[in-house]
Amino acid sequence: MVKISFLGGVGEFGKNITLYESKKECLIVDCGMMFPESDALGIDRVIPDFGYIKAISDKKEIALIITHSHEDHIGAVPFLLEQVEMPVYASPFAKGLLLNKLKEMEIKEVKFVDLTKERYFRFGSFNVEPIFVTHSIPESYSMAIHTNDGIFYHSSDFKFDQTPLDSRLTNFSSIQEIGERGVTALLIDSTNSEVPGIATSEKMVFRTFEKYISFFENRLILTMFSTNIQRIRGVLELCKKYNKKVAFLGRSLFKNIEVAEKLKHLTLYENVVINSDDIEKYDPSKVVVIATGSQGEPFSALSRIAFDEMKSISIEEKDLVLFSARIIPGNEKRIGRIINQVYRKGGRVLTPEDEPSIHASGHAAKEEIKMLASFVKAKYYIPIHGEFRQLKENGEIARELGYSKENTIITDVGDSLIFKEGALVGRDKVQAGNILLDGESYDPVGQILLRERKHLANEGFVLPIVVVNAVDGTFEAEPEVIHRGYPPLENQLELLEEIKSNLKNLEKELSKAEIKDQNILKAKVKSTVKKSLKKRDSKIPLVIPVVMEV
Amino acid sequence: MVKISFLGGVGEFGKNITLYESKKECLIVDCGMMFPESDALGIDRVIPDFGYIKAISDKKEIALIITHSHEDHIGAVPFLLEQVEMPVYASPFAKGLLLNKLKEMEIKEVKFVDLTKERYFRFGSFNVEPIFVTHSIPESYSMAIHTNDGIFYHSSDFKFDQTPLDSRLTNFSSIQEIGERGVTALLIDSTNSEVPGIATSEKMVFRTFEKYISFFENRLILTMFSTNIQRIRGVLELCKKYNKKVAFLGRSLFKNIEVAEKLKHLTLYENVVINSDDIEKYDPSKVVVIATGSQGEPFSALSRIAFDEMKSISIEEKDLVLFSARIIPGNEKRIGRIINQVYRKGGRVLTPEDEPSIHASGHAAKEEIKMLASFVKAKYYIPIHGEFRQLKENGEIARELGYSKENTIITDVGDSLIFKEGALVGRDKVQAGNILLDGESYDPVGQILLRERKHLANEGFVLPIVVVNAVDGTFEAEPEVIHRGYPPLENQLELLEEIKSNLKNLEKELSKAEIKDQNILKAKVKSTVKKSLKKRDSKIPLVIPVVMEV
Repeated sequence: MVKISFLGGVGEFGKNITLYESKKECLIVDCGMMFPESDALGIDRVIPDFGYIKAISDKKEIALIITHSHEDHIGAVPFLLEQVEMPVYASPFAKGLLLNKLKEMEIKEVKFVDLTKERYFRFGSFNVEPIFVTHSIPESYSMAIHTNDGIFYHSSDFKFDQTPLDSRLTNFSSIQEIGERGVTALLIDSTNSEVPGIATSEKMVFRTFEKYISFFENRLILTMFSTNIQRIRGVLELCKKYNKKVAFLGRSLFKNIEVAEKLKHLTLYENVVINSDDIEKYDPSKVVVIATGSQGEPFSALSRIAFDEMKSISIEEKDLVLFSARIIPGNEKRIGRIINQVYRKGGRVLTPEDEPSIHASGHAAKEEIKMLASFVKAKYYIPIHGEFRQLKENGEIARELGYSKENTIITDVGDSLIFKEGALVGRDKVQAGNILLDGESYDPVGQILLRERKHLANEGFVLPIVVVNAVDGTFEAEPEVIHRGYPPLENQLELLEEIKSNLKNLEKELSKAEIKDQNILKAKVKSTVKKSLKKRDSKIPLVIPVVMEV
Repeated sequence: MVKISFLGGVGEFGKNITLYESKKECLIVDCGMMFPESDALGIDRVIPDFGYIKAISDKKEIALIITHSHEDHIGAVPFLLEQVEMPVYASPFAKGLLLNKLKEMEIKEVKFVDLTKERYFRFGSFNVEPIFVTHSIPESYSMAIHTNDGIFYHSSDFKFDQTPLDSRLTNFSSIQEIGERGVTALLIDSTNSEVPGIATSEKMVFRTFEKYISFFENRLILTMFSTNIQRIRGVLELCKKYNKKVAFLGRSLFKNIEVAEKLKHLTLYENVVINSDDIEKYDPSKVVVIATGSQGEPFSALSRIAFDEMKSISIEEKDLVLFSARIIPGNEKRIGRIINQVYRKGGRVLTPEDEPSIHASGHAAKEEIKMLASFVKAKYYIPIHGEFRQLKENGEIARELGYSKENTIITDVGDSLIFKEGALVGRDKVQAGNILLDGESYDPVGQILLRERKHLANEGFVLPIVVVNAVDGTFEAEPEVIHRGYPPLENQLELLEEIKSNLKNLEKELSKAEIKDQNILKAKVKSTVKKSLKKRDSKIPLVIPVVMEV
């Protein structure tokens, strides 16, 4: 029996994590994070609920495999390893990026296994075959998971780029060979299942960059994901060729480039790379700046350049900023703010919407999805990595390929599929969900606290305090009213006075017994305050009555 | 002398308001609102700062002209009229929509003048000529403002639709006639200055809707702006033709349709329009639902349909939802959430990104902008209505048309341009900015309060209370610590106990004099709490120390 459980990445973008369980083992494929919804106030990241993994960790051997090192595939790994110890099967680049993360969270002594060493690796009854695929980050792999109950082909993120800059192609022959052996289920990337045709090659972006770097007579500022090592490598090669300088800005860039250089994914030519403090020393036409912040992050290098918060560089007349990245939905407004600011200062901006050739997606489009499916020839077709819209569109592709409705399986977070001897024999549910993390302490934030924050954010709070003598049932001090974030009390002194005087009157209006009863008194204080506020506004702040007993 | 001042709408999208001042009069063209930035927590709308208008209102006659009734042109009118009394020159439809707004805010006795009655209307030394233009709302006008110092052509929003559903075309002959007389400055819509070609006709959307309404065999749910009366009219006509029923969902739809019907902009056929409670009585293939919520607003009809919060209708297998509206940047994520939910329930969604023909913009694209400019032949070219990017792109169009750099004028909020005898003779600055409004009380929200809200939203607050005997300098009760929205205190009882005990220790650590001094004691309470929190997390909540004296 093999049980496949989806703890994330289906019906949502990001937080990719899939479990493959046999009787004695559990193989976790990837463990990513997700950006929070915009109304999740103060939340920095969303990670999977690991409750189910913890529950089975006593009974089963557990291991983690990493397909590649994007945040939506490795971002939650430190949080998992903090809770459950397990070996990590990863490529050298993934290991490099993970070690930086683990160091930050002070997690030590993780056992890494290099999954690129051999054609297969064995974990209990599982035999796992990593298959190199092209994608937008170095060292990306699909995984063929051979089990006693069938072969499962886990595509993870992929595209079929025939002209990648590093010349390393997808391992087509292995895919076809596995297809010949008979695959039970194909779990396949749905990110771009709505995009017709085939993904653009990274070479096209390189050609576009060549046009700009060779001809453009003003300063170029490029922003892209700091994991897009191939693209950065391209810029370095072009600047070498055309005798220009490259300056890097952004902490994550430095870290990732360091790992990439060690593994020879790029070369930081001494006569090309300059320190960012030296940018102003060169003629603008001679400098290409690579900056983090393609999603408009407020503290990123690009945002700080635009708003004059960088010592080394600010936007000058005729600077051209190229957004060489997909705009992730939800980030349009903050990106728009940066673009507006660049134009205000006399610069110009191009996004992939204006000029599609400055970015190439790392994800398979419709025809690539079909091609992989026809190579793998699985019995079951299981779209993964996407919101319902993308999963369903990918399901439509399956129907075109001849899959029956029964063998095309759309799942939701928490769903389990049970396979036996090559057939789907049942479904189940496991504990799954979102853990919202706040700050560097990574404190999980519950729904109640999130609701409190929303209330505080939108309406503010009013906190009336009365001090009572618990023995006599009398008030011992003038009532106090603390408030923050609530405009009517900010603007109107008379409202504050009215509330205080109403609170004071409670001493006469209530019986001694009522005053001595904390619960009754608190309720009365609360209703007294609310009554005054309701007359003023339909928006009622969080009212928190406090009774101090002396 | 004519002084043109921009209180909004330049370097930003929305909040359109332009002042034309002569020696004795001030003509305000439009007075719109803008949606707040996503980090303006709890802010419902942004309106212009009226300080400058108030300042001149003692000295000059003031009047307001409305070009058309979109929210970014009329949304702030009630707030202006609340502060300064003035006559309003508006078309009947604009008056109808404004009266609804004024009623809600309990503003009475506004003097309206119907600007469609005569070819010109006179206001002091100004002679204003409204020129009918096609746009995405009924009764839209450009304004030719004739003054002693030149003619100013204020395009406001426009497009050149040759096949509008109501067959009423832009008044081209008047524009050309004015152009022949010599225009000093053209103030021209920049919204779509980056879009090549010409805007799509409303007829094309009608043809697309005809395809769906005649052929589609499942339920159609259309969402669009409730002011898009022409499009709604088209749906009504099509449903009459193809024997289908129309149900409206959403409060603003009802209000606007009512005004539109009275003015004969559409007909609510008795055998076509059904009550939303009756939707389920009809076969899904026979019903077209028009719902508010094209921007994914959380309490809109569409959102409530998707999340099963409507009694009368919920998404069923095969329902098709068409977003017949532009997605305003910043709303992508909440729209995405609705789309995901529709797919989850078995429905499908199309946005203009998937099928461009389900929406037509109301704004002139590049070639229409050029056409208007060549008709008007003004001396100065002043892009309005857009962020800097759109203003600058519109400026590029001017350069193509042969305008010099000097005669192409990019402005920012608060800029004034002074014209004399047909020439730009100076520039000035006037008070201008954003007023953020909160709730139905429309309390203005200051920057400090906004910062407090951000702090509360992202980190929460901790409020320690100590009760002291002001005479003895002793503590009179156990210190109390109230907190909301701060995870470490939610999760760890021992941290709360540690803080309380540290606060209690202050009684011994401080001298009687220090305890008796409210300021010193407050500072000590605050630093004591912060010290404990800093050990736990880098995120520090708002700490509000309270000292109660008995």
